[in-house]
Amino acid sequence: MTSIKLPTLDDIQQAHARIRGVIHETPVMTCGAINEMFGADLRFKCENFQKVGAFKFRGASNAVLSLSDEEAAKGVATHSSGNHAAAIALAARMRGIESFIVMPDNSPEVKKKAVAGYGAKITFCKPTLKARETTLQAVIDETGAAFVHPYDNFRVVCGQGTCALELVEQIGAFDMIIAPVGGGGLCGGTATAIKGLGLSSKVIGAEPEIADDARESFLTGRLIGSKNTPTIADGLRTSLSELTFAIITDKADDIVTAGEEAIISAMRLIWERMKIIVEPSAVVGLAAIMENKLDVTGKKVVIILSGGNVDLEKPPF
Amino acid sequence: MTSIKLPTLDDIQQAHARIRGVIHETPVMTCGAINEMFGADLRFKCENFQKVGAFKFRGASNAVLSLSDEEAAKGVATHSSGNHAAAIALAARMRGIESFIVMPDNSPEVKKKAVAGYGAKITFCKPTLKARETTLQAVIDETGAAFVHPYDNFRVVCGQGTCALELVEQIGAFDMIIAPVGGGGLCGGTATAIKGLGLSSKVIGAEPEIADDARESFLTGRLIGSKNTPTIADGLRTSLSELTFAIITDKADDIVTAGEEAIISAMRLIWERMKIIVEPSAVVGLAAIMENKLDVTGKKVVIILSGGNVDLEKPPF
Repeated sequence: MTSIKLPTLDDIQQAHARIRGVIHETPVMTCGAINEMFGADLRFKCENFQKVGAFKFRGASNAVLSLSDEEAAKGVATHSSGNHAAAIALAARMRGIESFIVMPDNSPEVKKKAVAGYGAKITFCKPTLKARETTLQAVIDETGAAFVHPYDNFRVVCGQGTCALELVEQIGAFDMIIAPVGGGGLCGGTATAIKGLGLSSKVIGAEPEIADDARESFLTGRLIGSKNTPTIADGLRTSLSELTFAIITDKADDIVTAGEEAIISAMRLIWERMKIIVEPSAVVGLAAIMENKLDVTGKKVVIILSGGNVDLEKPPF
Repeated sequence: MTSIKLPTLDDIQQAHARIRGVIHETPVMTCGAINEMFGADLRFKCENFQKVGAFKFRGASNAVLSLSDEEAAKGVATHSSGNHAAAIALAARMRGIESFIVMPDNSPEVKKKAVAGYGAKITFCKPTLKARETTLQAVIDETGAAFVHPYDNFRVVCGQGTCALELVEQIGAFDMIIAPVGGGGLCGGTATAIKGLGLSSKVIGAEPEIADDARESFLTGRLIGSKNTPTIADGLRTSLSELTFAIITDKADDIVTAGEEAIISAMRLIWERMKIIVEPSAVVGLAAIMENKLDVTGKKVVIILSGGNVDLEKPPF
């Protein structure tokens, strides 16, 4: 028995109405050569083309735009070394409010620059969860800024769910949709939207085999923590939250995994044949298909390409 | 006084009608961050998403589909180490005829594989122009295949011109369009289409500073040969032909150049901000803008991203 309030289709539709004017409607791409390889009709939802290069901008902008003027006046805060930090910084700039980002001091230079470039005030901390949390608390105590967690946040999950809503408007029904699972915001939002629309499409989460905490949680019914493994899919190292675990348990159909080599091969396949840049986290679903973890033969299957932020100097292949 | 027959708008429209069912209608993309950098409204025509990853498929498919059944029965032939070879091979496969490709034996493995993958019969030769030409002649003597030159070919130029026709259907009028210039097929086809439509848009060719034979030919009115320089924009090392020189002299407004470093920076900018993969030849126009060779302030400017075939293992930045 849970007392957590789960989002509904209506919540996601409200989020969509709220953020539609500020997000990109991202294209759905196909690739004849890849379809031939798998004997399937694969549709790639290109959130790598979303603002800040990742779906995270959907949730961040929904959270930032949902603040009252009074709350907003004090700014927003979060801790993140990645796409969520950039998304919050840009969403705040677009609303004309301040953002305070706590970043581990070992974050990649390119990410520090991106976040600074969006006008965020950055506080660096040691690269531990404890340091991140205590530093963030100090920033919030000082500023009164509203904390927007990257996925353990109702508004954020609703924002991520708008991707699936948009998709159904674009291409109608399909047999299956695969979303990467890190903190579970995208997968949870997607499952809420698809099941809320009454579609029979299977909603599948995909995560690295060596970071399969979500699959284990899903199968055992008990939320387990991050496995702290250095998967190349760096966006998927986190564990689910109580909120996203509850949603995924309730609404997702399965969670599959993929090995590191398959993730790298899938990334290369997309770069080479589709000529678009995706990050490792984005292709775990395709990697699972390559490993025959999912039967897609003859099916119309959507893969959400969640982001495209990657160190261009050293692609992993 | 020239006796060369130049293509007209009508020829390009016929080409478009002929190939529309087999080519991709490529998207036109924009990037807010890049527009902000230059204070311009830049539109990127994404031929990197064309079949075989380059605009070359337009000209190749027009040439292959223009053959009579009798001619086609003997197959098509060309010599090329790059995108044109792949384009001819695929166009031939789609028509169900044979293709014979002469490739220098030092061609990149990835290109040999791509051409072989489309079912072409490859004959390797020494990497000199003379060896390519004599080997091709031997292949043609033996097979009776029709030779489709990569740019010194009326049908090929008409096919390349369909890119601009399609573009005008997509986004209407604009102030300027920039096409890379290697052999001049794309630039010549573009100029023919734009001027033939009666648009006042400037048509600008762009080539590497260290391979500026087209600019020199354009300015002096005398066709000069390739400068044989190792520009990173490997698709633009060739010189114009009599045909493309005549078209460009007649219809293009200017040819600008860009340095090697700017070409690399422009390529990186597109990969990083737009999340799409383009080859160096595709970004020479953007590189010229970065070097202030063109004033685009406040203007609606199209840049044709001509292709996306590049060695992913070692991007040049």
